[in-house]
Amino acid sequence: MSTKAPLPPTGTRDFLPDAVRRRRHVQGIISRCFERHGYEPLETPAMERLEVLLGKYGEEGDKLLFKVLHRGDKLKRVLENSPVQESELTELGLRYDLTVPLARVAANYPEQLTRVFKRYQIQPVWRADRPAKGRFREFFQCDVDILGSLEILAELDIFAAIGEIMAELGLGDFELHINHRKWLSGLLSSLAVPASEHATVLGVLDKLDKVGPQAVLEELREKNVSEALREQMPGLFESFLAGRPQPEAFASRVADQAGGPEAIGQLQTVLAWDGPRGGRIVWNPLLARGLDYYTGLIYELRIPPWPSSFGGGGRYDNLIGMFSARPVPAVGFSFGLERVLDALEERGQFPAFEGHARAVAGVLDPAVIPWALDAVSSLRAQGLSVDLFPEITAVGKLMKWVDRKKIKYVLFMGSNEMETGTVSWKDLQTGESGTVPLSEISSILR
Amino acid sequence: MSTKAPLPPTGTRDFLPDAVRRRRHVQGIISRCFERHGYEPLETPAMERLEVLLGKYGEEGDKLLFKVLHRGDKLKRVLENSPVQESELTELGLRYDLTVPLARVAANYPEQLTRVFKRYQIQPVWRADRPAKGRFREFFQCDVDILGSLEILAELDIFAAIGEIMAELGLGDFELHINHRKWLSGLLSSLAVPASEHATVLGVLDKLDKVGPQAVLEELREKNVSEALREQMPGLFESFLAGRPQPEAFASRVADQAGGPEAIGQLQTVLAWDGPRGGRIVWNPLLARGLDYYTGLIYELRIPPWPSSFGGGGRYDNLIGMFSARPVPAVGFSFGLERVLDALEERGQFPAFEGHARAVAGVLDPAVIPWALDAVSSLRAQGLSVDLFPEITAVGKLMKWVDRKKIKYVLFMGSNEMETGTVSWKDLQTGESGTVPLSEISSILR
Repeated sequence: MSTKAPLPPTGTRDFLPDAVRRRRHVQGIISRCFERHGYEPLETPAMERLEVLLGKYGEEGDKLLFKVLHRGDKLKRVLENSPVQESELTELGLRYDLTVPLARVAANYPEQLTRVFKRYQIQPVWRADRPAKGRFREFFQCDVDILGSLEILAELDIFAAIGEIMAELGLGDFELHINHRKWLSGLLSSLAVPASEHATVLGVLDKLDKVGPQAVLEELREKNVSEALREQMPGLFESFLAGRPQPEAFASRVADQAGGPEAIGQLQTVLAWDGPRGGRIVWNPLLARGLDYYTGLIYELRIPPWPSSFGGGGRYDNLIGMFSARPVPAVGFSFGLERVLDALEERGQFPAFEGHARAVAGVLDPAVIPWALDAVSSLRAQGLSVDLFPEITAVGKLMKWVDRKKIKYVLFMGSNEMETGTVSWKDLQTGESGTVPLSEISSILR
Repeated sequence: MSTKAPLPPTGTRDFLPDAVRRRRHVQGIISRCFERHGYEPLETPAMERLEVLLGKYGEEGDKLLFKVLHRGDKLKRVLENSPVQESELTELGLRYDLTVPLARVAANYPEQLTRVFKRYQIQPVWRADRPAKGRFREFFQCDVDILGSLEILAELDIFAAIGEIMAELGLGDFELHINHRKWLSGLLSSLAVPASEHATVLGVLDKLDKVGPQAVLEELREKNVSEALREQMPGLFESFLAGRPQPEAFASRVADQAGGPEAIGQLQTVLAWDGPRGGRIVWNPLLARGLDYYTGLIYELRIPPWPSSFGGGGRYDNLIGMFSARPVPAVGFSFGLERVLDALEERGQFPAFEGHARAVAGVLDPAVIPWALDAVSSLRAQGLSVDLFPEITAVGKLMKWVDRKKIKYVLFMGSNEMETGTVSWKDLQTGESGTVPLSEISSILR
């Protein structure tokens, strides 16, 4: 690329036609599946008031918000101050995720939404993160959530949809790793870890299946975590890593802890189900997931042997109500859309010719324009997708253009053709060509 | 709506499920049609560098840009200055239209794009305009453009697509008003209006079919426009307004003006064509359109008797090249997406049940969860769209929920049904109900 024209902003991308087609292929499968399952589409504005966004994503998140500058007289008045405060310069920001906007929507339209509300949302979000491979400043999230249900059936409903989507994408060999926040906090409490240290300890334990027991124990020692925990951990690690652990084997450990029996019961219910189409459900007893706000079952979508996650989610019963007077229980899942696209690319699983026209028509002579337009129009009316090269063309120029497109047939329309009511055609894959009456060309193109 | 939660920012909207469905219905028809015609999809980031945006939309446009504030240390350093300059606070803005990003893309990827490039783009744009009925600060544009062709065939290719889209939307009774910038400038030059006054005079003449000859003449007088023009105008108005004027009748007037014969010839070519499917093409000899950058044929989509335009466009041969070394001829059209949605709403032309599930399943007993999930899954595998109410439900609670959704069938799945391998169902439209073997329910739902 040798150009002096300004590029798109750092961390953002232009999607040229083939990239858009690939993205739409994936988004289409996801949307159609969620619709089929009764999830309803929601879209919210790119900008939100800062009071909606600030303080919801932790200190780090606040720093990553893109904020929108005041304009006109309002800005002018602010700039006359000295010193100028950042908070006076802006009252809007770009959305950072799709969960906080959902919480606002739930509070804004209590009458229009059903008490139990199943929605999905595929839109870009913006974060001023340091750009890196696979990390962008504008990227798409694809969230599905059920508001208003306290029951595990809500999680299972989402799992069923995930299974269908993955199968339809050709990624049916997935694993859904599940765990439960109340099991984790029961486990840590049984090991005498004070609640204030749970988050730190979970952050370390979460790495068990990536870095192994030795590294985890070492990090726990560095972090000065309670000795009781470190003594019992090797035994627990062994039982967690041996074969497929079942929650009932650990029920007695958390029987007296708040939420412990409930967590074990829910894990059992999920594992008792055969699981979503294609994939399998695996209990991962130390899976923790990063976000603070989860309160129940949590889950992560993986495809071995890829190490990264293809999406994740959990139950978060205290977040959606933040703008309302009443609490609203919620479960959600977020697809890693960019990751899914990468995986399909790596496996070469995008469909061929997706979205491209079946044929390109070239008009060889200005005198035949109206006839050629009508001929092409009649082919399109028969459901055929026909591109028109928008210049009066010579055959060579047309072939050069077609060469850059994924097209099977070329049609030539000149004065000979008009006079005889025919179309000349060439099949670029087989090299065949011919001239047939206009009425017969559609059967060749099919 | 009685809520204290913050609303979306002024001039922006949340799209609740039915609104999203209606928008997707329209966007889907437009996208599929453009794809069928060989237009390729393009998407660009929401933010652009300010150097790309500034100075492209006139002084008024620059004021309406949403600009993005610097962050972190960069912002801190700026705020230490006194006085603080606006230009130091920001280097990014939200895109204002889809044409300037297209011009940047054309310059950025000369190798990846074909010389003649047909693209469409449906994305939101942001303008800090005063919000009013039908005027938003975030709204969707739907642009289609052909870059690289100097020929009128490019315009006709776009017209053919517009016709198909309007017919498929159920808005086939449209008129495409056309005119030509070179005819207009030839006409004004023949009336001794200096080129520097053309824009002002065209702005007045453009209103002829809305306000009538008297008001136009009065405004021309107020604006001190040349007497020669004012003397000849009444006669011209008469011939323009009488019946359907044909360009050939006015050819001699602009025969000696630069571009005059070319303009008349192109108008004749377009009018000689039967026109796009459904609609009709009308020459509107004083149609001017607001934008300065048009250089050739211009057009506006109307549906009488609605006074407003449903979209418009024209040839602009000097704009796309602004970031490149070489000029790039271009023609384009922009659908008024919000206006189309309003029109379909007014006429009640949205399809019913669009996107809603065919049935809702209710699980009546926790013991049947795995069985019910598999039963619903097998129905979905047969292509049926089945929503699941995500709580263990009583019949009454389920019916209350269903009442808010546009659903035809309700399915009940309890322990009786599981034991006998049946499903109980109710048709909410006819009131019929029954219990049938699981294998037979799909034929009822179809």
